[in-house]
Amino acid sequence: MTFTSAVKAILSNYESDNPGTRANLARILTHGRLGGTGKLIILPVDQGFEHGPARSFAINPDAYDPHYHYQLAIDAGLNAYAAPLGALEAGAGTFAGQIPTILKINSSNSWASGINQAVTGSVEDALRLGCAAIGFTVYPAADDMFDMMEEIREMSAEAKSVGIPTVIWSYPRGGKLTKEGELALDVGAYAAHIAALMGAHIIKVKLPSAHIEQKEAKPMYGDGDWSTQGLRVAHVVKSCFNGRRIVVFSGGASKDIDAVYQDARDIRDGGGNGSIIGRNTFQRPRAEAMAMLDRLVSIYKGEE
Amino acid sequence: MTFTSAVKAILSNYESDNPGTRANLARILTHGRLGGTGKLIILPVDQGFEHGPARSFAINPDAYDPHYHYQLAIDAGLNAYAAPLGALEAGAGTFAGQIPTILKINSSNSWASGINQAVTGSVEDALRLGCAAIGFTVYPAADDMFDMMEEIREMSAEAKSVGIPTVIWSYPRGGKLTKEGELALDVGAYAAHIAALMGAHIIKVKLPSAHIEQKEAKPMYGDGDWSTQGLRVAHVVKSCFNGRRIVVFSGGASKDIDAVYQDARDIRDGGGNGSIIGRNTFQRPRAEAMAMLDRLVSIYKGEE
Amino acid sequence: MTFTSAVKAILSNYESDNPGTRANLARILTHGRLGGTGKLIILPVDQGFEHGPARSFAINPDAYDPHYHYQLAIDAGLNAYAAPLGALEAGAGTFAGQIPTILKINSSNSWASGINQAVTGSVEDALRLGCAAIGFTVYPAADDMFDMMEEIREMSAEAKSVGIPTVIWSYPRGGKLTKEGELALDVGAYAAHIAALMGAHIIKVKLPSAHIEQKEAKPMYGDGDWSTQGLRVAHVVKSCFNGRRIVVFSGGASKDIDAVYQDARDIRDGGGNGSIIGRNTFQRPRAEAMAMLDRLVSIYKGEE
Amino acid sequence: MTFTSAVKAILSNYESDNPGTRANLARILTHGRLGGTGKLIILPVDQGFEHGPARSFAINPDAYDPHYHYQLAIDAGLNAYAAPLGALEAGAGTFAGQIPTILKINSSNSWASGINQAVTGSVEDALRLGCAAIGFTVYPAADDMFDMMEEIREMSAEAKSVGIPTVIWSYPRGGKLTKEGELALDVGAYAAHIAALMGAHIIKVKLPSAHIEQKEAKPMYGDGDWSTQGLRVAHVVKSCFNGRRIVVFSGGASKDIDAVYQDARDIRDGGGNGSIIGRNTFQRPRAEAMAMLDRLVSIYKGEE
Amino acid sequence: MTFTSAVKAILSNYESDNPGTRANLARILTHGRLGGTGKLIILPVDQGFEHGPARSFAINPDAYDPHYHYQLAIDAGLNAYAAPLGALEAGAGTFAGQIPTILKINSSNSWASGINQAVTGSVEDALRLGCAAIGFTVYPAADDMFDMMEEIREMSAEAKSVGIPTVIWSYPRGGKLTKEGELALDVGAYAAHIAALMGAHIIKVKLPSAHIEQKEAKPMYGDGDWSTQGLRVAHVVKSCFNGRRIVVFSGGASKDIDAVYQDARDIRDGGGNGSIIGRNTFQRPRAEAMAMLDRLVSIYKGEE
Repeated sequence: MTFTSAVKAILSNYESDNPGTRANLARILTHGRLGGTGKLIILPVDQGFEHGPARSFAINPDAYDPHYHYQLAIDAGLNAYAAPLGALEAGAGTFAGQIPTILKINSSNSWASGINQAVTGSVEDALRLGCAAIGFTVYPAADDMFDMMEEIREMSAEAKSVGIPTVIWSYPRGGKLTKEGELALDVGAYAAHIAALMGAHIIKVKLPSAHIEQKEAKPMYGDGDWSTQGLRVAHVVKSCFNGRRIVVFSGGASKDIDAVYQDARDIRDGGGNGSIIGRNTFQRPRAEAMAMLDRLVSIYKGEE
Repeated sequence: MTFTSAVKAILSNYESDNPGTRANLARILTHGRLGGTGKLIILPVDQGFEHGPARSFAINPDAYDPHYHYQLAIDAGLNAYAAPLGALEAGAGTFAGQIPTILKINSSNSWASGINQAVTGSVEDALRLGCAAIGFTVYPAADDMFDMMEEIREMSAEAKSVGIPTVIWSYPRGGKLTKEGELALDVGAYAAHIAALMGAHIIKVKLPSAHIEQKEAKPMYGDGDWSTQGLRVAHVVKSCFNGRRIVVFSGGASKDIDAVYQDARDIRDGGGNGSIIGRNTFQRPRAEAMAMLDRLVSIYKGEE
Repeated sequence: MTFTSAVKAILSNYESDNPGTRANLARILTHGRLGGTGKLIILPVDQGFEHGPARSFAINPDAYDPHYHYQLAIDAGLNAYAAPLGALEAGAGTFAGQIPTILKINSSNSWASGINQAVTGSVEDALRLGCAAIGFTVYPAADDMFDMMEEIREMSAEAKSVGIPTVIWSYPRGGKLTKEGELALDVGAYAAHIAALMGAHIIKVKLPSAHIEQKEAKPMYGDGDWSTQGLRVAHVVKSCFNGRRIVVFSGGASKDIDAVYQDARDIRDGGGNGSIIGRNTFQRPRAEAMAMLDRLVSIYKGEE
Repeated sequence: MTFTSAVKAILSNYESDNPGTRANLARILTHGRLGGTGKLIILPVDQGFEHGPARSFAINPDAYDPHYHYQLAIDAGLNAYAAPLGALEAGAGTFAGQIPTILKINSSNSWASGINQAVTGSVEDALRLGCAAIGFTVYPAADDMFDMMEEIREMSAEAKSVGIPTVIWSYPRGGKLTKEGELALDVGAYAAHIAALMGAHIIKVKLPSAHIEQKEAKPMYGDGDWSTQGLRVAHVVKSCFNGRRIVVFSGGASKDIDAVYQDARDIRDGGGNGSIIGRNTFQRPRAEAMAMLDRLVSIYKGEE
Repeated sequence: MTFTSAVKAILSNYESDNPGTRANLARILTHGRLGGTGKLIILPVDQGFEHGPARSFAINPDAYDPHYHYQLAIDAGLNAYAAPLGALEAGAGTFAGQIPTILKINSSNSWASGINQAVTGSVEDALRLGCAAIGFTVYPAADDMFDMMEEIREMSAEAKSVGIPTVIWSYPRGGKLTKEGELALDVGAYAAHIAALMGAHIIKVKLPSAHIEQKEAKPMYGDGDWSTQGLRVAHVVKSCFNGRRIVVFSGGASKDIDAVYQDARDIRDGGGNGSIIGRNTFQRPRAEAMAMLDRLVSIYKGEE
C-alpha cells in the first residue's frame, strides 16, 4: 500500500484543491517504485521538439519510437512520463493506465527568435488522453514572461476546475539576466517562488549554482552557507512556501553517471522531492538507463 | 456588535452595488479589532513576487511560510489579508472563515522590462477561495496603462456581478512622469480619482509628498496649504468622490517604527480609512510586529 | 405633455431602431425644461478623468462630490447627465429616475502617450445603472482610430440590441491632422458624418471654425459662405444625414458667459440640437451656473 | 417572371451554399430592370466614409440625404443598393422590401495611416436590417492583408450559415505593389481569384489596364492579346473559377458619360456580370443620373 | 475490398483518435487505385492562391475550372483532392461522395510581406463540405511560427473532436534558416518531427537534400549514409515516430517526368507513404497527366 503518511502529508499542503486534483497528485505520488515515499522520478521527453529528432535520438535509435519511452518509464517503475501532444497520442491507447502521464502543453524549438514557446496542447487534450497533469514552461526574466504567465494562469485554472494539477517548468532566461545568472541561487529560488505563487502544484527548476546574480539580493545571501548543493536545494525548497509545494530538479545535458547520482543525493538531502531526468535516461542504451534508474530509486529510498 | 453607524455610513456610499458586494465590504469593515470603526488595517504580502523570496523573507525566515501571514493577520486582529493566488491557496483551507482575504490578481517581478503586470488570478479563483475582494494594480502614466485599465474594468465588472468588491492599487509610474512625480500630491490625488472613476470600492495609494508635478495643475494648488501629511491625505480623500470611497495608504519600504505610527496618525487625521502595511510588518520579528500592530490599532481607534 | 410633434419627428428618423432604443432617446428628448422642444442640454462630467480632480473641481470644491452634478443637472432641468462609471455608480441609487444618464464608456487622461482611450465601462454597466445611453469618444485621424471604431461598433451593436442608444464624441485628432485642422469645418463635418455612418444616435462634435483643412475638400467649400457660426453648424447638421441624426455641440474650455450664449444661439439658428456643456457649468459657482443654464434654456426655446 | 434560365444557371454554380444564401443571391439577380438577365447594376454609396461628405455630396446636395440613394436605386430599377451601417439604418424602415441592400461592413477614411479598414458592421446588423448580402473590402498586397482576410473569413462563414451571401471588394494596394500595378491585368485577375478562393459569392474589382506588373507572370501573358478592355474583362472572369462566380466591375472616379457606357459594353462583351457604379451616379443631377442608368440597363440588355 | 491489413496497421498507430477521425483517415487510405495499399497520391491545388491564376493555369487553361481538378483526381483514381475554401465550394455539390477532399485552411500569396499565411477556412467549413481532413501550413523557423503553431493547435483540436484528421504542410522557411537549409535533411526531419509532435495525422514535407544545416546536428549525421534519396526519406519517416505517422512528400515545381517517377520510387523505397503532387499534374495536358498518374500508381503498387 503506497498511500502512506508521507503522501498524506504532502497532499495536505494542497488544501485548496478539489478532490480530483489531489487524486491526480496522489496518482503520481503513489505510482512506481518510489510510490509512497514522497519522492519522485519523472521521465520527460520533449527534446525532439527542443533540439530535433536526430540530436535527441540518433545516439539510441530505439528512442525514435514514442512507445520506447512509455515502456522505459513503466519498466523502471518511475512515477510519471511527460511529453508533448503527439508523442502522448502515439502511445496513450497502448499504455493506458500503466503510468501517470503529464502533457507538456507548450514547446519551443531550435529556431525560436524570441524567448517564448508555442502552446501546443490543452487541458481538454490532457483529459481525453487520461493525463494526470499538465506541464508548462515559463521563462522568468524574458520579455514575454507576462504573456507566458497569463497563458498558464488561464490553462491552470481550467485544469484545476477539472481535477488536473499543473507542473511549471520555471526556467529563468532572457531580459537583463546573464548566462551565469540563469543558474544563480537567488534567481532559481525566485523562479521557484514565482511558480508557487502562480499556483503550480509541482515546481520544476534547475539545480542552482552558488552564484548570486541580483545586486539587491546579495545582502540577504551574504552570510549564508551555500557551498554545497544540498544547502542550495534546501533554500529552493524553502522558497516554495517553506516546503509546502513539491519541487523537482532537472538534470541538464547528459553527463557522467556519478554526477547524476550525486545530484540525486543532494536533492534528497536538501529536502527536494526528486528528479526529472530526460536526456540522461534515453540517450543511454536501455539496459544502462534501467540500471541508472534503479540506482536513483535506491538513492531516493535512502538506501545509499 | 460591529455593524455600527460608521460602517452603515460607509456602505451607504456604495449605493449602486448589489447586496453581495456590500456584504463583502461589510465583512472587511466589521472584522478584527478595528471592526466597526470605519478604519482598516490590511496585511498585504506580494513582495515575494515583486522582489523575490530572500529579499522579502530572509530577515524573518518564518515568513517563508504562507501560514505565518494568515496567523499574524488573525492574531493581530487586522481587517484583511491580501496575497497572490498561490499564497492564498496554501492557507485558504486551514484558515477559512478566520479572516477576510483579498486575492491580488496581478503581479510584477524584478525582471519586468515594461511597466505592467501579469494577470495571475481571476474572479473565479476569488470565489472558490472564499475571498472578500480582488486587488489589482494600475500604473497611471505608464505606456500600458490603457491595457491595465481595460483588464481591471473587465475583471471588476465580473467581480461586481458575483458580489466581490475591487481594491485598486493606483501607483503612478512610467511615461512622462519623473521619479519625484510618482509621489507628488497632484499625481497621487489624480491616481486616486482615476481609481474611483474606474469603479474601485477600495483605493490604495501611497502617502503623497508636497511636490506638485504637473505644470497645468500648479495654479490649482498654488495657494493651498499642503505642508502637513494630514492635509495631503485629506486632499486625496476629497479626490475620491469627496470621501465617498474607502481610501487606504501604503507604508512603503520598512522604516523607523515611529514614522509608521506618525503615518497612521496623519492618515487618521486627514480622514483616510487606514493602512495597508506589508514589509513593515512581516520583516520584523513576530512579537515586534504584533506590538506595532497593536499600537496602530490604538491610533486608528483615536486612543493616542 | 412633452411627447410633441417635434419629438415624434426626430424619433421617426431612427426608423431602424427597436422600440427600446427609441424609447430611451425619447426619455432624453422629453426630459427637463427643454423636453418636447427637440432641443437638448446635456451636462458631461469626465474632466476629472481627462485632467485630474484639482484642475476640474478645485475652483468650485463642491464639485468634487458626484452628487453635486446629478443635483445640478436635475435642478437646472437639463435633458441628461453624462459621466464615467465610478461617478455614476456614486449617485445612481440616490437619483434613480430623476434624470436620464449617459454612461461614458471610454476615457483618457493627462498621461496618455497615444491618441486613444481606455474602455472603462460596458453596456451591462449602463443597464444595471439605469442609463438612457452610452457615450464613446472616437478620434478620427488618430493612428488608433480603426481600433476605436471597432470597439464602439461592437459595443454599440450590443447596446442597440438591449435598447440603449449610442452617443459618439467624434473629435478629430492625431495622424496627419494639424492643430488648426482639428476644428476645421471640413474636418468637423467629416467627423460628424463618420459618426453617423457608424450608427450613432446622437453625435457630439466641437463647434467648427471657418478653416478648411483638406486640400481635396477645398474646391467643395470654395464658393460657400462659412463666415458665421450658424452657417457652419448648418453644414455639420447637413453632413449628419441631412439632419436625420441628433447633433449636439460642445463648448470647449470655460469662457466668457456671453460667448456661451452666442454659441447656443448659433447652434439653434444653424439647426443643431443643442449643447453639451461641462466646464462652463461646474467650474462656476452653483448659483451662477444655474442662472446661465436658465438662459441657455430660454435661448433654445427661442425666447431670446 | 424573372427566375429565368440565366438566373438558374448562375445559381447552379453556388452548389455548396444553403438555400438561404442562394435565395438571397436570387433576390439580387431577379430584382429591377435587369432582373432575370444575369446582369447587375449595383449602387454603392460609401464615399462619404472614404472621402467625407462635402467631397461626395456637395456637387449634388440632395445626396446628403440617405433616402435619396435608396429612392434613386429603386426608381432606376437597379439590382441592389450598398452602403455602410448608418446609411442603411437611416432608410431601411422606409424602403423595406423595395430593393435588395448590401451592408458594407468595413470602411476606411481619408486619414488612414495604414492600408486597412475598420470593421463597422456585422452579420447581425445585416439580418436585422433585412439585407441581401454583406460587402467587405480586402487589399491584396497590403501589409495587413492577412488580417483583413481573416476578418472576412470569419464574417463570411457566419453570413453563409444564416443565408447571407458575401460580396468582396478586392482592391490590390500597398506592399510592394506600384501605383500602376494596382490596375494591372495580372494583379486584378489575381485579386479576383483570391476573392473567389476565399469563398466570395460576388467579386468586385476594378477594370484592369493592359499593364502586366509581376515579373514572374509576364511569360504567361506574353503572347496573349490584351489590347481591348473586353478581352481583359474576359480574363478576369476566367480567373474567377472559369466564370462560376459573379464578377462586377467598378467605374472609378466620375468621368465622361460616354466612357461609362463604353465600360459597360466592354464588361458585357467580356462576360462580366455588371457594374457597381457610385460617384458616376450620385454626383450628377438626378435626372441626368436616371438617364444614364437607363442607358446602362439598355446596354446590359444588349439593346445597344 | 480495400480495408486491408496494411490499412489496419496504419490505423492502429492512431490509437488515441476517436473512431470518427480514424474513419476519415480510412476513407483516404481505402479510396482510389491505391486504396488498401497504405500508399497515397493526393492532388493539391492551391497554387492559384500562392502564385496567381495565370501562372498556375494559363499553360493548361482547362485548369481554371475547379471542376477540372475534381474530375482529374477522380478519373485518375487518386486518394484525395486538397484545395482552399472557394475551390472546394465550387465543386463539392457536384462531386459529393466521389473523392475524399482536404480543405486547405490557410494560404499565402505572392505579396506576403512576412512568412506567414492567412487562415481562410475552418473546421465547420470542412464539415459542411463533407471533407475528410483539413490541411494547414506551418513554417518552422519563421518569426511567426509560434503563432502558426497555436492556430493549428486550436483548429486541429476542434477537428479531432468532430472526427476530422489534420494534414500539416511543414515547410521550414525564414528566421535564421538559409535558402539551402530549407531543404536540408536535418531541417526536413526536424520539421516533420515537429508536425508529428503537434498531433498531425498526415505529415507533408519536401524531399530533402543531403545537406546538413544545423551545426549542432552535424555530429549526429556525420557517419550516416545520406547519399540516396531513399535513405533520406527513410530518415524522415523514422523522425515521424518511427513510422507511426503517415508521411507524404511534395514534388516541388513542375519538372522532367522521369524525375517525378524517380521521386516516387525513392519515396516508396524509403518507406514514405506517397506523393502530394500538384503543379506536375495540372500543368500538363490532361491526357499526359493521366498517363503520369497511372505510372505513379504502378510505382507505388511496386509494379515497376
